[in-house]
Amino acid sequence: MFAIVDGNVAAASPWLADAIAAYAGRHRDQLELMADPLLLEGGEAAKSDTAVATRLHTLWNELGVDRHAVVLIVGGGALLDLAGYAAAILHRGVRVVRVPTSVLAQADSGVGVKCGVNLFHKKNFLGVFAPPFAVVNDARFLETLAARDVVAGMAEAVKVALIRDAGFFTWLESRADALVHRDPEALDTLIRRCAALHLRHIATSGDPFELGSARPLDFGHWAAHKLESMTRHRLRHGEAVAVGIAIDVTYAELAGMCDPASADAVRALLARLGLPRWDEALEQVSAGRRVVLDGLDEFREHLGGELTVTLVRAIGEGVEVHRMDEALIEAAIARLRPDAQ
Amino acid sequence: MFAIVDGNVAAASPWLADAIAAYAGRHRDQLELMADPLLLEGGEAAKSDTAVATRLHTLWNELGVDRHAVVLIVGGGALLDLAGYAAAILHRGVRVVRVPTSVLAQADSGVGVKCGVNLFHKKNFLGVFAPPFAVVNDARFLETLAARDVVAGMAEAVKVALIRDAGFFTWLESRADALVHRDPEALDTLIRRCAALHLRHIATSGDPFELGSARPLDFGHWAAHKLESMTRHRLRHGEAVAVGIAIDVTYAELAGMCDPASADAVRALLARLGLPRWDEALEQVSAGRRVVLDGLDEFREHLGGELTVTLVRAIGEGVEVHRMDEALIEAAIARLRPDAQ
Repeated sequence: MFAIVDGNVAAASPWLADAIAAYAGRHRDQLELMADPLLLEGGEAAKSDTAVATRLHTLWNELGVDRHAVVLIVGGGALLDLAGYAAAILHRGVRVVRVPTSVLAQADSGVGVKCGVNLFHKKNFLGVFAPPFAVVNDARFLETLAARDVVAGMAEAVKVALIRDAGFFTWLESRADALVHRDPEALDTLIRRCAALHLRHIATSGDPFELGSARPLDFGHWAAHKLESMTRHRLRHGEAVAVGIAIDVTYAELAGMCDPASADAVRALLARLGLPRWDEALEQVSAGRRVVLDGLDEFREHLGGELTVTLVRAIGEGVEVHRMDEALIEAAIARLRPDAQ
Repeated sequence: MFAIVDGNVAAASPWLADAIAAYAGRHRDQLELMADPLLLEGGEAAKSDTAVATRLHTLWNELGVDRHAVVLIVGGGALLDLAGYAAAILHRGVRVVRVPTSVLAQADSGVGVKCGVNLFHKKNFLGVFAPPFAVVNDARFLETLAARDVVAGMAEAVKVALIRDAGFFTWLESRADALVHRDPEALDTLIRRCAALHLRHIATSGDPFELGSARPLDFGHWAAHKLESMTRHRLRHGEAVAVGIAIDVTYAELAGMCDPASADAVRALLARLGLPRWDEALEQVSAGRRVVLDGLDEFREHLGGELTVTLVRAIGEGVEVHRMDEALIEAAIARLRPDAQ
């Protein structure tokens, strides 16, 4: 086993290195630690540094990591993506055990089947689908997170409840205050239900490796991806998703797809959780066109084929559309502008 | 669709570029050629040049190749491995259509699920398992092959018949002369039956992505891989496999696992097909030890875990062992030495 740990996680959880060594010691008849845990930098910026994968491959070659090795990765979604990619292409893929340390990664990306790195300024330009050998969600890591990151991590839960599970949405409404105060039991339930919905989608959607033109779970993501790059990741992924949710639910309301009361409930839940519904980057204009609208083209380009966007008909009920009206997107953004509230 | 063609294949089959363009033209409502076919060098040496994958990614980024693109690869096993790997990690894997042009690739590797490139002087150090979207075997390419390559391509057929299909082995014996004279019908049957056995193994063995310690089809391959690198690919893969088959069937005979008549039949079939049973590299000694024996350690290291070698009990009946006796390997090699015949 070769362990990789996010440097910030290692600093915030000083018990971790000993715990890994103790686990390996208890199972020494079956498990050998090939080296001390390697500390790496997490975050989206690290995913754009191609030297990291090369460094891992060089090290793994020197250590003789083979197809019976396990690469243990402890960190947030970006580090899981990056180190997971390096492991997924080593010897045609070695076993990866993910230990996601953020709310977002425990609830969403960490239990998924994707990994990747950025190249040519394009998110996940290189990557593969590689189901992890195991995922271990440990609540102790959440205690060390900044409040902002705990809140940001809840955005994907709001999203998946909104398009898939009305009961979960109602639960989120009922436990919003507990969640904001990071009540451990409430946080645990949020993560379990969100992760289960995510896994159920991968296992039963019929397109786990995304050969089609749709990403049914990517509600609100066309704007979110664009806002992340426009703000150079000043907005966390979860925060950008929250803004994207607000735009798309307001769009669905203005388009007459979704009733105003449901749209109000979504915007209210985002607000109660402390998630943004607006960001000043939405006002950016280039050559007479609102820049965020380019996100719709880029969303289509990334998957290829026909534009397919998930919108919402009612709480818990997503619906796919193949066209969005720009004037109506403009109107939705105008409705969300703080001075319009 | 983006087409990649082995430069030698393009030169030997000048009709190919027009055929690709004509096909795209007939299906222009569904298919667009993104560029003229890109000519690349094939062969094992190309697999060690990491710049090729980078060049492909740079080009594909400029052309805007997305997840709905098809990468068509026309060439031998090494080019299919190399370009297939570049495509398998682009956008988490785009569709690949393989058009294998050698007997070996049409019968064996081209219908498999692997791709990869060499790094740190290690074969397929980077790679993934990536089932192709389609494989097209076109007999016209075989007409342009050198006699040596046609013969070398038959070694994997002898191997898979020997460990899996006695009826196929008998067929090979009955058609050996026709095969040597590259009778198109005989060659077609050899390729179909070999490819079908290969595919059946992948689909039904229970370990298509090789998480276990065994590669049941790699009969004779521990010596073959080593002989290839010892001779710096002076020996073709198929020729090295033929020598490996001769060593392991003779070993099985000397170990009392396989009756002498069956072992004689295997060696005789190799001889009738014009395949080698011996190479001077077998005599290389370093620090008092026969160098080819290191192939056994490297074979174990590559897969990790316990050594597992397929040997043979009778024609059509492979058997796994977890230990090989070095003195008996020495004796088998001595039996194969030309002056011992």
